[in-house]
Amino acid sequence: MRLTDPRELLAAARGGDRGAVARLLTIIEQGGDAAANVDRLSFVDASVPYTIGLTGSPGAGKSTLTNALIGQARRVGHRVGVLAIDPSSPFTGGAILGDRVRMGDHALDPDVFIRSMATRGHLGGLAVATPQAARVLGAVGFDRVLIETVGVGQVEVEVAGEADTTVVVVNPGWGDSVQANKAGLMEIADVFVINKADRVGVAETRRDLEQMLELSATTGGASPGPSAFGWRPPIIAAVATTGDGVDELWIALEQHRHHLESTGALAQRRQARLAGELQRVLAARVTERVLALSTGSTFERLQIAVASGEIDPWTAADQLVIQALSPDDH
Amino acid sequence: MRLTDPRELLAAARGGDRGAVARLLTIIEQGGDAAANVDRLSFVDASVPYTIGLTGSPGAGKSTLTNALIGQARRVGHRVGVLAIDPSSPFTGGAILGDRVRMGDHALDPDVFIRSMATRGHLGGLAVATPQAARVLGAVGFDRVLIETVGVGQVEVEVAGEADTTVVVVNPGWGDSVQANKAGLMEIADVFVINKADRVGVAETRRDLEQMLELSATTGGASPGPSAFGWRPPIIAAVATTGDGVDELWIALEQHRHHLESTGALAQRRQARLAGELQRVLAARVTERVLALSTGSTFERLQIAVASGEIDPWTAADQLVIQALSPDDH
Repeated sequence: MRLTDPRELLAAARGGDRGAVARLLTIIEQGGDAAANVDRLSFVDASVPYTIGLTGSPGAGKSTLTNALIGQARRVGHRVGVLAIDPSSPFTGGAILGDRVRMGDHALDPDVFIRSMATRGHLGGLAVATPQAARVLGAVGFDRVLIETVGVGQVEVEVAGEADTTVVVVNPGWGDSVQANKAGLMEIADVFVINKADRVGVAETRRDLEQMLELSATTGGASPGPSAFGWRPPIIAAVATTGDGVDELWIALEQHRHHLESTGALAQRRQARLAGELQRVLAARVTERVLALSTGSTFERLQIAVASGEIDPWTAADQLVIQALSPDDH
Repeated sequence: MRLTDPRELLAAARGGDRGAVARLLTIIEQGGDAAANVDRLSFVDASVPYTIGLTGSPGAGKSTLTNALIGQARRVGHRVGVLAIDPSSPFTGGAILGDRVRMGDHALDPDVFIRSMATRGHLGGLAVATPQAARVLGAVGFDRVLIETVGVGQVEVEVAGEADTTVVVVNPGWGDSVQANKAGLMEIADVFVINKADRVGVAETRRDLEQMLELSATTGGASPGPSAFGWRPPIIAAVATTGDGVDELWIALEQHRHHLESTGALAQRRQARLAGELQRVLAARVTERVLALSTGSTFERLQIAVASGEIDPWTAADQLVIQALSPDDH
């Protein structure tokens, strides 16, 4: 029997039913009332997971690094959820083939859950769906959630930047660090990784990043970035394919977490994120209403009445708004 | 005594009170419930004005041409309203100085009303405000409304293209006709004017425009353009500053109007525009609600409750939506 009730799905997912986890995340991706119901339950029940965002140019080696981090987290006893964020894909069907291959080391581990996220119609987009998905993973027992993005588009930077700790992955070479600066990654980076550090140019890239960090620390910004709480983003050289530097990266991640916890910054960041979430969810809910208003027989009837001059557009719009918002109607 | 009631303002405007006309248009620009109330009244009472849109690059001579068209329309007994659309200006204070100068011939004519339009906070923007403003002018006795835009941005093309007859103004020179094509003006032009036709390059520009018209007539488009109703846009050479060609332009405008009326295309166009207006007004109304929802003590209280984990964002958003939509609350 296929479960559909959110409570039953959550209970099954907590009991180790991976199909139930997948189904919960699909509901989140689809948005609307069903997603709201799942989120209500997971919000209340959640053991809030610690989230780590990984972002950087395509090909920087984020998936391989994520795979290595999963192994590291598993060795110290964490249960690990992974969300691979792809805003360009309207529908991924669960997992990108490439991710499955690169993270394949953990495919059979019951304490690891890997999922590619697309929006599938969620009106709030991945910016709304991703924190919900992380909460669901937390609510069903994954205490670490890695959020990996496919590139450095606006949505990807936004989503990765909303994690508790954000890792920006670059490769040796002057262009990559400049691009990181342009894309706004300097603002959100808590930790830098120079991946593929067996290639030439590591020292130059480190110097570039350090200079840009100096600059942004001096000039400041509109909103308090990582450095505002007295944290200077470390720059870790790594070779994700061999595992070199992954220990050091893990230590940096843990140090950042301790820093956030000890300064009170973690609670502040999370509260600010939730306050922002309310506005996004509100916009998504109202958008749902507008779309619901723009279809159906009432809309068609009023559209004809307006077109024929029987009724003005304002009166018609207000009739639609009132109808859509009456408690019996949704 | 300064009138504020929309009914009284409309009555005063019909009686020749130009201050009342100006005040009604300011209300329209500001949007919200007051604009809705004015539009409701003018929608019911309107003698629907015939609207003529003029668009083209800055400096093409649109204002001078508009001035010449006002004179032509006055000679045959029309009362003429002019809306100068400037999306780049958040606030114009009534009329752009340059327009006043260029259209100054008619500044003292009680049967001409010239107004620069800015949005002043109207959430639907000029695309919603302009047709409302044209209705107001119609309702107070101006049977021809000229809608002149400052440039060829997206809003300007949209607004000018929503007139009954759309005039695209270019100057002699290869670049201008190419730009007209790029900006989507070929799609919306019912009549072309090559203004400043005392300069070199008129024949080449005419040939360019004719070739582009051939091409667009052959390939067709997603939506039926002017040619769909068997109308081929004429190309008029004019020198607005001397009045050369303005007679011919006026005749072309009247021919187009007769064509639209005799084929039933005028009614079809107007109905389609009104149906589109309903969707825009609906979106504006819902946006007003969202903004209203995102301020105030209830929002602040719920934002704190969400941030502290007491309540999930969905429940909070739905509480805000329900509160905002309760009939007593707006």
